[in-house]
Amino acid sequence: MNSDTLLVVLDLVGIVVFAISGALTGVEKRLDLFGVIFLGSITAIGGGFIRDALLGAFPVAALNDWRYLVAPTVTALVVFYIHPAIAKMSRILLIVDAAGLGLFAVAGTHKALDHGIGPVGACAIGTITAVGGGMIRDVLVREIPTVLHKEIYATAALLGAILVVTGDRLDWNNVATAVAAIALAFALRVVSAWRQWSAPVAKH
Amino acid sequence: MNSDTLLVVLDLVGIVVFAISGALTGVEKRLDLFGVIFLGSITAIGGGFIRDALLGAFPVAALNDWRYLVAPTVTALVVFYIHPAIAKMSRILLIVDAAGLGLFAVAGTHKALDHGIGPVGACAIGTITAVGGGMIRDVLVREIPTVLHKEIYATAALLGAILVVTGDRLDWNNVATAVAAIALAFALRVVSAWRQWSAPVAKH
Amino acid sequence: MNSDTLLVVLDLVGIVVFAISGALTGVEKRLDLFGVIFLGSITAIGGGFIRDALLGAFPVAALNDWRYLVAPTVTALVVFYIHPAIAKMSRILLIVDAAGLGLFAVAGTHKALDHGIGPVGACAIGTITAVGGGMIRDVLVREIPTVLHKEIYATAALLGAILVVTGDRLDWNNVATAVAAIALAFALRVVSAWRQWSAPVAKH
Repeated sequence: MNSDTLLVVLDLVGIVVFAISGALTGVEKRLDLFGVIFLGSITAIGGGFIRDALLGAFPVAALNDWRYLVAPTVTALVVFYIHPAIAKMSRILLIVDAAGLGLFAVAGTHKALDHGIGPVGACAIGTITAVGGGMIRDVLVREIPTVLHKEIYATAALLGAILVVTGDRLDWNNVATAVAAIALAFALRVVSAWRQWSAPVAKH
Repeated sequence: MNSDTLLVVLDLVGIVVFAISGALTGVEKRLDLFGVIFLGSITAIGGGFIRDALLGAFPVAALNDWRYLVAPTVTALVVFYIHPAIAKMSRILLIVDAAGLGLFAVAGTHKALDHGIGPVGACAIGTITAVGGGMIRDVLVREIPTVLHKEIYATAALLGAILVVTGDRLDWNNVATAVAAIALAFALRVVSAWRQWSAPVAKH
Repeated sequence: MNSDTLLVVLDLVGIVVFAISGALTGVEKRLDLFGVIFLGSITAIGGGFIRDALLGAFPVAALNDWRYLVAPTVTALVVFYIHPAIAKMSRILLIVDAAGLGLFAVAGTHKALDHGIGPVGACAIGTITAVGGGMIRDVLVREIPTVLHKEIYATAALLGAILVVTGDRLDWNNVATAVAAIALAFALRVVSAWRQWSAPVAKH
């Protein structure tokens, strides 16, 4: 697939998924309609904003394409009205957040490579894109950001990013690599939460 | 009025007004003199920093014009010393914050249009410029950001931004449109707070 | 010394020092290994990210040079394992944080001057570079940022920045000026903490 098209697809799906995550958090925190839409939108586009501001990719994607802004607004609106249908919110939240993590890790790494950033920098951008929106979401509702205290979170994004960089170097098919990398980050995140894998804590 | 001049005027008045808001918050939180100046300044210039970093408008306005930096410092200093004269702080805080909201919504939307951003993106930038400084202020003093839990906040900024975009399309006089849009956002914010308008909260 | 080389040296030493500060904070907050590495890294490179995004210095330094990313990761890893050897953490934390403050104030001011920013703007960038990483660190672990409530913090960075700007204007040797400015900011910060200098608080 054309690299630009792939990037837009990854970005838009990631935006919808993170908008769900942000909006569900807003509903859980009993924000009103406008608060839910705002939190859903900033969660969805925050990671891409940070990515593009660091890459110097102007105009940043979300400002140049109205779908990037309408998609999270509509998504959050839908979540606001249908959420009672969602029974076990915390489990759903985990799944959508993990999907967004994988999608944005891959989208961020791709865009960094397209901008001529080296492999280490591209992995960093991929990771930051993936965790950025959720960090903003958690800070705004005064939760300790997931990225700091969940077993495998930034690490899952980083491994997805490394797979993308590897595929780029070895000239693998970009769609197949993207799918594999999203699946890797997603699976790692979900399985680690499900099995409650824990990383070591420093001795005190 | 020349578009550049209009932008500088809007920016500077918005900076002074948000510096008052940030400094009053600092005084309320019993920060010392330096903390009050820092909080006032970052509240005042934070929204513009985010705007310019997203637009790729380099050098960002606040770095290119010493008045953007001296104005909030002096404002915060004055607030620090004269604040006991201000009787009902929370009401004043509401008014100045609403004024800043309108001013920065209009300034941000204008600058985005000047940079060739489309109507949807320009409204997004206007809204983010307007709520950005206050979000930073609230996060730094560990309050839930106003934008998430006050009835009409980002929405007031967004409606002001939409008016600016409409005026730009229909070729209205830019100063008259700016004044009307500031008044619209300001009035909406103040009236909604005064009448305690509330948006729906999702059923649980 | 060549201005570019001086900047890289200042940046890298500052990164290591702030990575120690972020990682120690993570250990204190009982984050796990990955959380400690993430917090250490974002503390270390956050200030430079903000600086470069505001200067429009693309690609931002930390993405263009793998050492900027590997250095904080390795540093945080080491801190995670050897920290029990560190007896009085809060005192050490003060010292390393003060060193990072001075280093980044000078690095930020230099880079701003290299990008043609005027003296007031350069001092602002220096101060923001110096306090940015620590602000992100404190917000993420839900502490009130040091910059808001410690006696002399942003002020120490600002005075270091002013010394760099002065030296640049008067054509002093850049290495000697940098060392003096770092020492000034560091000493001011440490002495003010040690002597518990306090700035006035507004009367209520």
